[in-house]
Amino acid sequence: MHLRPPATGKEPAVITVYHPEHPHSYIATLSRLLPGHTVSDQSEPCTRYAVVWNPPEGFFSRLSGLQGIFALGAGVDRLLGRHDLAADIPIYRLTDAGMAEQMIEYARYGVLHWQRSFDFYRTQQQVQQWQVQPDRRKADTRISVLGLGEMGGRVAAALAGDGYCVSGYSRKMRTLAGINCVHGEDQLNALLTQTDVLINLLPSTALTRGLLNAERLALLPAGSALIHAGRGDQLDENALLAALDSGVLRFALLDVFALEPLAAGHPLWRHPRTIITPHSAAQTLIGEAAAQIARRIQALEQGQEVTGKVERSRAY
Amino acid sequence: MHLRPPATGKEPAVITVYHPEHPHSYIATLSRLLPGHTVSDQSEPCTRYAVVWNPPEGFFSRLSGLQGIFALGAGVDRLLGRHDLAADIPIYRLTDAGMAEQMIEYARYGVLHWQRSFDFYRTQQQVQQWQVQPDRRKADTRISVLGLGEMGGRVAAALAGDGYCVSGYSRKMRTLAGINCVHGEDQLNALLTQTDVLINLLPSTALTRGLLNAERLALLPAGSALIHAGRGDQLDENALLAALDSGVLRFALLDVFALEPLAAGHPLWRHPRTIITPHSAAQTLIGEAAAQIARRIQALEQGQEVTGKVERSRAY
Ligand SMILES: NC(=O)c1ccc[n+]([C@@H]2O[C@H](COP(=O)([O-])OP(=O)(O)OC[C@H]3O[C@@H](n4cnc5c(N)ncnc54)[C@H](OP(=O)(O)O)[C@@H]3O)[C@@H](O)[C@H]2O)c1
Ligand SMILES: NC(=O)c1ccc[n+]([C@@H]2O[C@H](COP(=O)([O-])OP(=O)(O)OC[C@H]3O[C@@H](n4cnc5c(N)ncnc54)[C@H](OP(=O)(O)O)[C@@H]3O)[C@@H](O)[C@H]2O)c1
Repeated sequence: MHLRPPATGKEPAVITVYHPEHPHSYIATLSRLLPGHTVSDQSEPCTRYAVVWNPPEGFFSRLSGLQGIFALGAGVDRLLGRHDLAADIPIYRLTDAGMAEQMIEYARYGVLHWQRSFDFYRTQQQVQQWQVQPDRRKADTRISVLGLGEMGGRVAAALAGDGYCVSGYSRKMRTLAGINCVHGEDQLNALLTQTDVLINLLPSTALTRGLLNAERLALLPAGSALIHAGRGDQLDENALLAALDSGVLRFALLDVFALEPLAAGHPLWRHPRTIITPHSAAQTLIGEAAAQIARRIQALEQGQEVTGKVERSRAY
Repeated sequence: MHLRPPATGKEPAVITVYHPEHPHSYIATLSRLLPGHTVSDQSEPCTRYAVVWNPPEGFFSRLSGLQGIFALGAGVDRLLGRHDLAADIPIYRLTDAGMAEQMIEYARYGVLHWQRSFDFYRTQQQVQQWQVQPDRRKADTRISVLGLGEMGGRVAAALAGDGYCVSGYSRKMRTLAGINCVHGEDQLNALLTQTDVLINLLPSTALTRGLLNAERLALLPAGSALIHAGRGDQLDENALLAALDSGVLRFALLDVFALEPLAAGHPLWRHPRTIITPHSAAQTLIGEAAAQIARRIQALEQGQEVTGKVERSRAY
């Protein structure tokens, strides 16, 4: 074997990668960035770190000596509460790693779709109708962002920078320049009544699951829009369909679903006022993700603290 | 009459407004901003200034004493070469007046539609296909803006600020920070071969009419996109349909047409990869347009120079 002990004098680490689509890209990149360590997808028994995206149930049972798990995404809901994983092993999530920039693009597109009436023009095109819609200006477009973390915080700041009227909702009280920050359920409900475009970027936790239910969607003004890119379990899909049909929502731009891939024949596929994307709003960029994980592994190997550790008590 | 001579001591001006949709909003706003002057839509014989949008042929014949014409838009192609208008009467176009901001929104939407594969996802949705597309990053998205004036210059700067790789094409040689500026037909043709998203914001002149013909569209790389918001006569619509069908263009976002309103039954309405908007990319904002025109009339009344005068020799 080509193992040379790294500078710390510790044993080289074994790093096991699980990725359903391109494990080899991650293995190649991590091997290059972590010379001296072993990076493999063979579920090595003595694995110090696991780097994973949606590993199958039982995956972690085969690994022993695990000191940290790196999620290849921002959301870790599928890693929490697993039977094959001891609750004391630290889980690290990706912190931005190029995803916030993509999420800003996704949110901007959905906001412009509403503000500049592209949904109306699409319907008009179907019936060959030429009619100018009275567009809203940015400052009169009220955007509410649910979640003000790596994703929501950056999205809210970018849209406020564009000139929109932006509010944001988080768990703790936050203060962000140029953003009307609220927290707590009462404030959320009041905010929904004053929202033109609702952008959901919350993590999936016991508290956020089912948050966007029929009652809350009904608080939105008639003719608003939903951009949904947090997690599918936060939205009642039947309530969404009802809100689209009743005219509360002009359209919904949807990236995440209760069951993914969205099942063939699901009414959301066929609704004339949904835009469906396949959980692609902010894709993990292999280069940036691997670089961030390699930096963190190197720091941990040198006994340093690293960012991105999930707080299990709050589940994000 | 309530005429009080303005401070200059000159006779108060008579200002005739023609607007096919809301003349009265303009009359009310201009009257308020130009106290002492007469603002009317009655084609007063002694009209010093005409404020117009698409006036019918013969409209100007009835006005005498005309010293200036204010177009309620950025393009003046429909005011040039008219039989009812002497060639020595100055024409002023709107300079931005809130339109550039809207044009940036429109362009951004079209660029994101391409960059983030929303056209592909729309097709996939129709067949209920869940498949992530490999998105381009901003720095790898090559945008070419035709026209670097009030509209094109601002659009190019905004997109470069967003992080896109932006080129721009103008008549004269220009130097703009962060934008690869070209001019001349050879450079244009070379640029088209390196363009992912082509944004047309040229004025309609003898030199730009028919510019986007079959030969030029064929220079674009396969799978590029067109955002067309200059004037309809610049684009060969049959060549466009051919470019869409051959796969040169993934889609076209179209705001202007050879004949407006776009005729019922026109194949562009029905093409699956067009997005049709009714000449609404950058709408004239009554308040900002009236304020700009009132400021210019006041300056002219005081013998000052004003901006926005059309150079008849170049037709924009
Ligand atoms: N669709 C995609 O492609 C994609 C890509 C990336 C991420 N995501 C989703 O986006 C989520 C957020 O990512 P992130 O990186 O921004 O996470 P993060 O940095 O952990 O931020 C989470 C934010 O949500 C807030 N929050 C959590 N629970 C809440 C509650 N019960 N009530 C109100 N606010 C609550 C947090 O509030 P505090 O500020 O008070 O802590 C924080 O502002 C991920 O978990 C994932 O589900 C989706
Ligand atoms: N769809 C809509 O809602 C909408 C709204 C507003 C405007 N428009 C259209 O946009 C056009 C441009 O508006 P603007 O305010 O930006 O006009 P502008 O300030 O006069 O700018 C015109 C630009 O086009 C360039 N140009 C003119 N003729 C050219 C040629 N033959 N070859 C190369 N470049 C040429 C000019 O080059 P130089 O810099 O070298 O002079 C200048 O950069 C208007 O005329 C109108 O047709 C459409």
